[in-house]
Amino acid sequence: MSETELRDAYEDQDDREERLDEDDRLKPEFVRAVLDAVEAGDVAEAHALVEPLHPADIADLFELTPEDCRRDLAAAVSDLLDADVFAEMNDYVREALIDALDARQVADIASELDTDDAVAIIEDMEPEDQREVLRAMEPDDRAAIEEALSYPEESAGRLMQRDLVAVPEHWTVGDVLDYLRADETLTTDFWEIFVVDPTHEPVGTCSLSWILRTPRSIAIADVMQREQTLIPVDMDQEEVALRFQKYALISAAVVDGSGRLVGMITVDDVVHIIQQEAGEDALRLSGAGEGDINEPIRLTVRTRLTWLLINLPTAMIAATVVGLFDERIARFAVLAQLMGIVSGMGGNAGTQTLAVVVRALATNQLTGSNTMRMIVRELRIAGSNGVGLGLLVGAGSYLWFGNPALAMVFGLALFINNIVAGLAGVLVPVTLDRFDVDPAVASSVFVTTCTDSLGFFTFLGLAALWGLGG
Amino acid sequence: MSETELRDAYEDQDDREERLDEDDRLKPEFVRAVLDAVEAGDVAEAHALVEPLHPADIADLFELTPEDCRRDLAAAVSDLLDADVFAEMNDYVREALIDALDARQVADIASELDTDDAVAIIEDMEPEDQREVLRAMEPDDRAAIEEALSYPEESAGRLMQRDLVAVPEHWTVGDVLDYLRADETLTTDFWEIFVVDPTHEPVGTCSLSWILRTPRSIAIADVMQREQTLIPVDMDQEEVALRFQKYALISAAVVDGSGRLVGMITVDDVVHIIQQEAGEDALRLSGAGEGDINEPIRLTVRTRLTWLLINLPTAMIAATVVGLFDERIARFAVLAQLMGIVSGMGGNAGTQTLAVVVRALATNQLTGSNTMRMIVRELRIAGSNGVGLGLLVGAGSYLWFGNPALAMVFGLALFINNIVAGLAGVLVPVTLDRFDVDPAVASSVFVTTCTDSLGFFTFLGLAALWGLGG
Repeated sequence: MSETELRDAYEDQDDREERLDEDDRLKPEFVRAVLDAVEAGDVAEAHALVEPLHPADIADLFELTPEDCRRDLAAAVSDLLDADVFAEMNDYVREALIDALDARQVADIASELDTDDAVAIIEDMEPEDQREVLRAMEPDDRAAIEEALSYPEESAGRLMQRDLVAVPEHWTVGDVLDYLRADETLTTDFWEIFVVDPTHEPVGTCSLSWILRTPRSIAIADVMQREQTLIPVDMDQEEVALRFQKYALISAAVVDGSGRLVGMITVDDVVHIIQQEAGEDALRLSGAGEGDINEPIRLTVRTRLTWLLINLPTAMIAATVVGLFDERIARFAVLAQLMGIVSGMGGNAGTQTLAVVVRALATNQLTGSNTMRMIVRELRIAGSNGVGLGLLVGAGSYLWFGNPALAMVFGLALFINNIVAGLAGVLVPVTLDRFDVDPAVASSVFVTTCTDSLGFFTFLGLAALWGLGG
Repeated sequence: MSETELRDAYEDQDDREERLDEDDRLKPEFVRAVLDAVEAGDVAEAHALVEPLHPADIADLFELTPEDCRRDLAAAVSDLLDADVFAEMNDYVREALIDALDARQVADIASELDTDDAVAIIEDMEPEDQREVLRAMEPDDRAAIEEALSYPEESAGRLMQRDLVAVPEHWTVGDVLDYLRADETLTTDFWEIFVVDPTHEPVGTCSLSWILRTPRSIAIADVMQREQTLIPVDMDQEEVALRFQKYALISAAVVDGSGRLVGMITVDDVVHIIQQEAGEDALRLSGAGEGDINEPIRLTVRTRLTWLLINLPTAMIAATVVGLFDERIARFAVLAQLMGIVSGMGGNAGTQTLAVVVRALATNQLTGSNTMRMIVRELRIAGSNGVGLGLLVGAGSYLWFGNPALAMVFGLALFINNIVAGLAGVLVPVTLDRFDVDPAVASSVFVTTCTDSLGFFTFLGLAALWGLGG
């Protein structure tokens, strides 16, 4: 590193705070300054501002730039738009930028990347564009990507990289060290090496720190860890992520159907999946789909409208239940006032249980072994909360309306609807999960139907039994 | 490794499928078999079943065991209950087990762990027990843990480990290799080493794979990466996790206020935080607190009941709005039937927007630079969905009730409430975030208040304007 480079590196550290806030987000002033420069046609200024940024921050900059300015920004800093930046970029933003490049340029970018990142860029392209890009690539890179694309989407095969270090069992630590120093074509970033038998089946894993701390003469087979966590090539990425998390893995060997080592997945490729999969629950429970704020608006409207339309019958069923009692409501309109509290509070309680159960299912904490215990637990919680809330609203409504029968009906209905909410909140997602339906996507419609319709029915039905409103 | 051990290792691989399902969850039959053995007092059988399990699976086994059997299970497999198992265990389950151990035993377990895992075990103990455990520890371990405990909870200081490899700038790669081989006391698992200046400030990071591939004579300063992502010791763990994810870090140096290297955080310590923080959104939005299924039930009841009580005034405000129109409802009870659809559909739309905005805020995708764009985006989505749904329910209710004025009021109210939902869904969480209130915790009450009360008000108010029901 030359002295100039050194000085630059230190300056970068100081400037960091001018560009990023304390949460590593680009400051609005900085983004504004870049965009102003781009709009004013001052390419040199824009370039100077963007150059010191980390690739992940350049990717963020594009995401924070309004859609119609992204092309101009890309033109101004085209030489900084390297493969790492594209690898960090949001799918939709990247896709739009990639569309503007010709096949040759895309091929160049993809060739520089690890297989998994290259696949991420290429897999979303139109089949025709995809073929063109692949034709423009070197045969080796092309073969690797074509093989990756042959695995199902969101599987370990798409996620893995082919570049890894595998050594035979009979080598010594010294052999491994010499091999690593000699072979220039090896990948540069790896954390563990894999030991394979003659059929290329992995028999052990060895962390680099152990190799570094072991004398050259020791056999690698004596240093390696034999108990390994292998990833089948067709495993779903969510399961891969859970496995990495559960066993605290840094990297793991990926094996094909016959048990041979075909690739490696490293934790940095899994971290964003862990984050994404864990965060999806809230979005799916609310029917917001992927919830990607860079998604084209028509796709977002379609996803959300579909969900709202699915919920409409639920609301209509509830309305029909209310309709059964409309003469009673006409005679005693206070019922219309209070019925929403019964259904609403039940809905809240159901949502709580649902969120907990969906999360426990997603993290493998709720299994066949403790489902029964979970149901009992939620019933006890619903019972406690139901008694507390029922007494409270019963007493409150008595003070408000001075009608003891109404107070009794109101409190009792709220209690019952809490129990309904607790039961539905567990049973619906657990049942869906048994039938391999994603409980986060489908549960809340059913739970809401229960708490709304049964809430109205219980309250108005009890009111009828007590003869409220005649 | 002896031949017997070798054979065992292979058998383990085969048996794996008998114990774990395809999602790495312990099979209910296996858990049942262990618990049957424990209940029957057959310690040898229970031990034989549990012994081949990975520490993470032993931890799971305890979580899946009913509370009242955990002590007996622990007694049966006490020698397998090592530090790694405790490190993997759910906080509440661990706490209960630890309570049953004496200070000496806890001290032994904590001494075997990395600082961060030891702190996790000790930080939740009662102050008195904590002091006793610390007294029973070796002075070195004790000092490390006491220092960690001096940092705020959920900060980098609690998360970091003190055992790391730091070397001076002027060393060659050969010096580093010799040092690593010679020093027996070094930590065994590390992925990067840190290069420090004479004041112990980190000046660079070097991945082990680069060291392994570089000739001995090269200076470490020429191999290391100067641009580093340093973690301040008081940084919140959520920010640490985001930083790891954003910059795809494997490990990172932790520095104190004067910039000196005091510890290291590795990605495996961060992965569960990423998962936890990302998954918290769904739980917080629904007011389910931590949503930990192992939490003592009275804590769960308290958390959830508090949330329901906070939501009660919201429901009452909505009921009061309905009360303003009770004479009209008495004359025209169909209003009571349809008003719930207006508020409910608005609530659904608001929840969708809220989930997306809260997620975008949590992942630093929504910043000052694109807030305005987000508001416009959500208004456009709400407008589209509102027009679609408004026309649909307007037409549907006309067919149902044959009342054009009612159909018009119903459709229009639904459209307006969609807009209200979209606006509230963005503005509420963004505003709370500006005031440093967690938007996931506090938003949904406000949004629901808007969609419920304004939904009723719009629908019933428009009905009054049109003279429906008199």
